[in-house]
Amino acid sequence: MTHRTSSSPALRIIPLGGLGEFGKNMMVYEYGDIMFAIDAGLMFPEEDMPGIDIVIPDINYLLANAAKMKGFILTHGHEDHIGALPHVLSQINVPIYGTRLTLGLVENKLREHHLWEKTARHIIDENSHLHFGPLHLEFIHLCHSIPDAVGVAVHTPVGTIVHTTDFKFDPNPVDGRLTDEAKLKALGDAGVRILLADSTNAERVGFTPSEQELEVVLDDLIRKAPGRVILATFASNISRVQQVIQVSERYGRSVGVTGRSMINNTRMASELGYLTPPANGLLTPDQMNYLPPEKVTVICTGSQGEPTSALVRMSRGQYRHIQLGKGDTVIISATPIPGNEKMIQRTLNNLFRLGADIFYDELFDVHVSGHGNRGDLKHMLELTRPDTFIPIHGEYRQLVLHARLGQETGLDADHTLVIEDGQAVEVGEDFIFLAEKVPSGRVFVDGSGVGDIGNIVLRDRRLLARDGFIVVTIGLDRESGDVVLGPEILSRGFVYMAESGELIEEAKDIIWDVLETHETAKDVAKHVHSALATFCYQTTRRRPMILPLVVEI
Amino acid sequence: MTHRTSSSPALRIIPLGGLGEFGKNMMVYEYGDIMFAIDAGLMFPEEDMPGIDIVIPDINYLLANAAKMKGFILTHGHEDHIGALPHVLSQINVPIYGTRLTLGLVENKLREHHLWEKTARHIIDENSHLHFGPLHLEFIHLCHSIPDAVGVAVHTPVGTIVHTTDFKFDPNPVDGRLTDEAKLKALGDAGVRILLADSTNAERVGFTPSEQELEVVLDDLIRKAPGRVILATFASNISRVQQVIQVSERYGRSVGVTGRSMINNTRMASELGYLTPPANGLLTPDQMNYLPPEKVTVICTGSQGEPTSALVRMSRGQYRHIQLGKGDTVIISATPIPGNEKMIQRTLNNLFRLGADIFYDELFDVHVSGHGNRGDLKHMLELTRPDTFIPIHGEYRQLVLHARLGQETGLDADHTLVIEDGQAVEVGEDFIFLAEKVPSGRVFVDGSGVGDIGNIVLRDRRLLARDGFIVVTIGLDRESGDVVLGPEILSRGFVYMAESGELIEEAKDIIWDVLETHETAKDVAKHVHSALATFCYQTTRRRPMILPLVVEI
Repeated sequence: MTHRTSSSPALRIIPLGGLGEFGKNMMVYEYGDIMFAIDAGLMFPEEDMPGIDIVIPDINYLLANAAKMKGFILTHGHEDHIGALPHVLSQINVPIYGTRLTLGLVENKLREHHLWEKTARHIIDENSHLHFGPLHLEFIHLCHSIPDAVGVAVHTPVGTIVHTTDFKFDPNPVDGRLTDEAKLKALGDAGVRILLADSTNAERVGFTPSEQELEVVLDDLIRKAPGRVILATFASNISRVQQVIQVSERYGRSVGVTGRSMINNTRMASELGYLTPPANGLLTPDQMNYLPPEKVTVICTGSQGEPTSALVRMSRGQYRHIQLGKGDTVIISATPIPGNEKMIQRTLNNLFRLGADIFYDELFDVHVSGHGNRGDLKHMLELTRPDTFIPIHGEYRQLVLHARLGQETGLDADHTLVIEDGQAVEVGEDFIFLAEKVPSGRVFVDGSGVGDIGNIVLRDRRLLARDGFIVVTIGLDRESGDVVLGPEILSRGFVYMAESGELIEEAKDIIWDVLETHETAKDVAKHVHSALATFCYQTTRRRPMILPLVVEI
Repeated sequence: MTHRTSSSPALRIIPLGGLGEFGKNMMVYEYGDIMFAIDAGLMFPEEDMPGIDIVIPDINYLLANAAKMKGFILTHGHEDHIGALPHVLSQINVPIYGTRLTLGLVENKLREHHLWEKTARHIIDENSHLHFGPLHLEFIHLCHSIPDAVGVAVHTPVGTIVHTTDFKFDPNPVDGRLTDEAKLKALGDAGVRILLADSTNAERVGFTPSEQELEVVLDDLIRKAPGRVILATFASNISRVQQVIQVSERYGRSVGVTGRSMINNTRMASELGYLTPPANGLLTPDQMNYLPPEKVTVICTGSQGEPTSALVRMSRGQYRHIQLGKGDTVIISATPIPGNEKMIQRTLNNLFRLGADIFYDELFDVHVSGHGNRGDLKHMLELTRPDTFIPIHGEYRQLVLHARLGQETGLDADHTLVIEDGQAVEVGEDFIFLAEKVPSGRVFVDGSGVGDIGNIVLRDRRLLARDGFIVVTIGLDRESGDVVLGPEILSRGFVYMAESGELIEEAKDIIWDVLETHETAKDVAKHVHSALATFCYQTTRRRPMILPLVVEI
């Protein structure tokens, strides 16, 4: 890195999501009065964010520069790349660009939010060219666990930036469409100033296995299955759905799909030509139930143990159309997303209770990742031979490991930049430096509220979850100061009230002691709070939230 | 299984913990007026048990049969086998039996609860024999991730029961003491009626690797480390600590330990002769800090990302004696316990931010399990050749997989019993059958409360965590019915109150509407509840807990 030496416009690359923590991918490119962003993804809430539905990037930087903003390029249809769009487009309504399948997946989402008609949409493919002022964008077909994913090459006056989305080099993808190594190599030959590449699997050695290898496993399991086959995978994994249909047909099985998102996605992908449905069409729920079991395969949601998903309801015997039991084969073709392990294991335990045969990743290779392992990552670096490398899409440790891998390919440490969300990078003809940080971070979506829940409310929720609350209501006569109401104690989550009469009476005694020695409402509230806090901790070793409401009447 | 045909006393085997979910192991053996239990473990709370400190077995069955109860046999010193003892012994104070190291670990725990002096303790070893009436117990040395673990052979009038604790067949254990295959085989030769064996790793193929293989890895990492080595593992993993001391000394490093439980356990294990401390003693905190980094190894707690552990504090730069940075090597020698993945990953990200070199299980084989894989499990079945097999220590899926493995060794399905906690098994000379269930389940310990928190309080805590609460206080004049107090709204965890003035005013308007059309306190409370619930959901799509407090003054 050298310091800025020229006054010609510099390109600014600004991550608003996806760097340093998993998900909510969004990368901003800014050149003079031109700005666009690649992806607008969401992140699922972590366990210390109770009640939060989804997490999206802070887009204050986009809003402050709205006049420059030309649109969003969407690289593929996964939630961590498109899931924030409804919330983002409702604040900054700019055009969106994506492949047909990607926009197909976006459509449902935007329609739900009444944004589809309002939004300008442009279908691109790997042969498209976009021009935003002096910036010229072309696209590169990449293999991933969803069809129709594209990387982006941004040709700028300060050089070419290659921005891979999530990718792998699969020699045998289900749809037969390989990652376009020739284009990547040609870009490399012509000179890549900066490569930004997916770091998700930077901890995994070797190459990601081909989907072909998975087909061998699925073929074996489905061929041998004595009864129904139930296969759970991600609803967006159109290729996996295609494989299961092919293998099932090979062994005379009809296929049904179930789970809302699975039904929607397979319908849409079929309509757009990304999925070849079974020759006889998909099974109806009744057919799944009544056809001879050895003639039925059901593809469903629930591979992450999501509480309302089809598989989880089946595992609890609460799914109307399918009662699982002995003779059925359940295949979970997905790996746990970190944080979901316990939910998945509970689902597995319940499935085993039903007596079915279960195949899942602890036992059997029934899934391959959509992300390239270290071998794939190194190959990408070797094809593009960038001057500078910025790992993206990963938690911090994965970015560091990917950067070190870049160094193994010959880059020196100065040309591998590990940055996090908000860290702007300025690129001129003869310099690259880390500029000032821009506003960035997590915005919580809870119900219809976007951004109204912050750390204070979350802290309160965590406190309430741990030890509950006590509200003490006391009314004092405005003139005499006599107690005319209460003390009334209302509490939840602290002790089981129906069996804690004695404890509550003791607490009231303590409050009466306070009332004898203090007079003003403010004073009473303060001392009730501290006396009760001490009492609760001494009697229960718990620290409920204590809220005195002392009013003059 | 045949039905009971004889009136001679039957042996009852009753799992109160450890079957169907991980942890809180406790198995009761009952024969006529004799009863004893093997282990008294705890389970750590899951994410849907907010505020709960630990979970222990329901021991109502023991309490109901207290006069028969002869004591607890403790197989080894892990929390899931001894952690419930303080809460159990305070209710039923019977003798405890364990090896020296196990009782050493129990001692700290019981002293904290002022139970050590009150409790009769008996040290056993693998040559001990115990007689409880007609029952004769002998012990079998087993390898595990803690020294001095024993399995139990219970010789009864209806045959010999072999109860393995957690075990593996390690050909090269650190303390040189092999699992006693000869004794197991001799028991098998003499005839084993029932085998109860550890199912934890029933999902993992092959044999669990030897600790010896790990030593090669640790040797390589520690030899090459340019600066300090920080190694985190379970505080009870005395053998791992011993290995690290040996390897460190080999390369001229002095060793310190840190983290309260690590310090306590290494001290106790050294005093009892289970750990050979470094020739020059352990480093003081000052020495860890000031000695040349390449001369220092620090063994610490925190391998599970526990928030207050030494490693986590180091990763946040909040550990006084050790500031980690470039040149330091951190080794996490443990696998994540399900549910801890996110906490561990956060710790890893922070460690990478400090610039240290990190080795952990995703990247490197820096841990071996203390539990036998399927190869080990099969070997145990082959040595003991039981008439009937009951898998223990595992979640339901692991019990089933272990039972199926038993069938692969030639047992038929009728002779492999998959049972869960509370399911009593009655064994007579010529029958085994599943008897009535006994009371069993989870007892929550929260602060000083044992068992007072049940599903209702937990449900409230989960609701509070999701969307918070609203308390509405209204005072009505006892005679006129006029509103003399409020409506006052108190809320936490629902919206950020400081910025929600408008919403609160709207809510008050809605409450006033109710007050205009309803009169009695009960009626007002009911309608305020439903009107506010609707209002909150319509405006925010959230469902806070709504608690109206309507009083007559």
